[in-house]
Amino acid sequence: MQPADLSSLLTPVALLDEARMAHNIQRMQQRIDSLGVTLRPHVKTAKCVDVAWAQRAAGAVGITVSTLKEAEVFFDAGFNDILYAVCITPNKLATAQALRTRGCTLQVVVDSVAAAQALVASGHVFEVLIEIDTDGHRAGVLPDSDLLLDVGRTLYAGGAVLKGVMTHAGASYECRTADSLQAMSEQERSRCVRAAERLREADLPCPVVSVGSTPTALSATHLQGVTEVRAGVYIFQDLVMQGVGVCRSAEIALSVLATVIGHQLDKGWVLVDAGWMAMSRDRGTQDHTVDWGYGAVCNEGGLLIEGFLMASANQEHGIVARRDGQPDGALAQRFPIGSRLRILPNHACATAAQFPTYTVLAADGSIKHWPRFIGW
Amino acid sequence: MQPADLSSLLTPVALLDEARMAHNIQRMQQRIDSLGVTLRPHVKTAKCVDVAWAQRAAGAVGITVSTLKEAEVFFDAGFNDILYAVCITPNKLATAQALRTRGCTLQVVVDSVAAAQALVASGHVFEVLIEIDTDGHRAGVLPDSDLLLDVGRTLYAGGAVLKGVMTHAGASYECRTADSLQAMSEQERSRCVRAAERLREADLPCPVVSVGSTPTALSATHLQGVTEVRAGVYIFQDLVMQGVGVCRSAEIALSVLATVIGHQLDKGWVLVDAGWMAMSRDRGTQDHTVDWGYGAVCNEGGLLIEGFLMASANQEHGIVARRDGQPDGALAQRFPIGSRLRILPNHACATAAQFPTYTVLAADGSIKHWPRFIGW
Repeated sequence: MQPADLSSLLTPVALLDEARMAHNIQRMQQRIDSLGVTLRPHVKTAKCVDVAWAQRAAGAVGITVSTLKEAEVFFDAGFNDILYAVCITPNKLATAQALRTRGCTLQVVVDSVAAAQALVASGHVFEVLIEIDTDGHRAGVLPDSDLLLDVGRTLYAGGAVLKGVMTHAGASYECRTADSLQAMSEQERSRCVRAAERLREADLPCPVVSVGSTPTALSATHLQGVTEVRAGVYIFQDLVMQGVGVCRSAEIALSVLATVIGHQLDKGWVLVDAGWMAMSRDRGTQDHTVDWGYGAVCNEGGLLIEGFLMASANQEHGIVARRDGQPDGALAQRFPIGSRLRILPNHACATAAQFPTYTVLAADGSIKHWPRFIGW
Repeated sequence: MQPADLSSLLTPVALLDEARMAHNIQRMQQRIDSLGVTLRPHVKTAKCVDVAWAQRAAGAVGITVSTLKEAEVFFDAGFNDILYAVCITPNKLATAQALRTRGCTLQVVVDSVAAAQALVASGHVFEVLIEIDTDGHRAGVLPDSDLLLDVGRTLYAGGAVLKGVMTHAGASYECRTADSLQAMSEQERSRCVRAAERLREADLPCPVVSVGSTPTALSATHLQGVTEVRAGVYIFQDLVMQGVGVCRSAEIALSVLATVIGHQLDKGWVLVDAGWMAMSRDRGTQDHTVDWGYGAVCNEGGLLIEGFLMASANQEHGIVARRDGQPDGALAQRFPIGSRLRILPNHACATAAQFPTYTVLAADGSIKHWPRFIGW
């Protein structure tokens, strides 16, 4: 295998290591298969049809989206089993219904009586999941609340197809140990299953129990009562997931290829042409044991350069420096102007969103380009 | 004048108040005119041709870009006096030269002998400015350094057109008082002029002395020795500029229109459909006297709602809450599901970059759409 020639690329580019991505897909799919449920990947991380085809080829069933634009793009590309996993509001019902009229099996989500009422008042028969709050992190109704049954009855009595319950334990991103990750996975599972049982006890249908986040999906020991898992960032992994403890840096498939544009030797700085516009402003490792600044620094071949990080960033300037802040007389020789580095991102969802295209490094060393989209 | 009807917009959208933008353009243009120099706006903030035409119509001369893609897009749209204000590297020379061959007056920047050598070795006669470090903030050579003359002589002897010097006092973003802003403006001016004088004393040409940032441009008392000012974010203004002290919130032209999608009343949360993917991850006011979280909250008409902020954000969920963290029994009535809010951004450059289109509210209440671009 020839190492890819990256010298012709106009930096910064979003470099996607296809072999690492394939490894991440296999790892998650095998894990979810072994837990006896189906995997519905969240496509909000990559927003790229080519990536989602690779997930489907490995065994994924359906997709999860965070915006109706994602639903439209992926439906147009041939994905028709879609869960829109953000509570829907009245102003979005016409767009959602238009997709359903075109043949899309689009499931929507609510967590309030008001939204449920708007849904049934629309005159269309939507397939609906109720969002459950299993970690106090975001949206959703509490599994033991009266509100759960109120929302369920509003939907069912109004003629909606009550598909079930869904939750996302975003608090898992704050875990740092295997024990806490397992406990969070079990909390996510048990509370969502509890909500499903309460709906069924109230004679309401609840065939679907959908849970997931990359950390909990990779940490669950069993998923009794669950029917599907959703996860997104596992496709690329990132420094936050490494800090949480669910991947190694050698599994991070997305990096930003940058070129050295200058030095400030008295400060120990190497300036590169990937600033925060390329890396994003995400500082997700800021409160981790290891704070990676704006990213971890690898050589052109993708090997981590120990002791360095992107310490700071302007819009189009990244400042690479030693972690210990010491000056380094060899900086200009070690990182000459025009040489290339790969910077691993804190948060792959945020970094990927800064680019209209992935530059994909295939396992055979060849390079191809996969489009991605932004916006709503 | 009819208030615009925003109810048909699929949120989140990047809402641009055209009257506020026009005010910001006039304010900066009049100021730079009165200082007796020309204004070369930095188009990296808006990345939108329609915006740049409005700046030119008001008297701007040329544009500044932060990427060669910006140079290409704006040249194709009819802007041919362009300063590429990030140090150029060997891998970008062919793209830069291709623009020049097509008739673009493209000035490039270097701050090292190595980059200057690569430039003259290319065989093309580039117009070049030397970047000066006037605040220790980023790139550039020190005005009193031997390096300044070394770079100047490398360019001049090598046959490049040495146009002059440029600097950007990014440290002005850390100022918080009128006095410190004036002092930073004078530091930026005097150190850049000093560099120009040293080049001229060494018999090197230096017709251009280019300085600027929005805070220093709006704070300078005189610009003796300067020929042009560059500034970018003034076009939209934002909460960081408000915190620095160079605009009022009523001058912020860019906001994100969001819809209320739910509540967590026990926590005092209003959930909206603009998360960090819409606002960006920029937390530029984090270390300000007033920390705005992910944004300041305005009603649908654009009036600030005192006492609230976007306290937190997930990818597609924004969490609006009272600044004092207290619960509020009237939240669901005050912010009903389906109602709309405008969120003012910390950093307009970062927030704008999340959107492919501006939804422009014209002064007559009509709505139009202006495209913007991303990528490199």
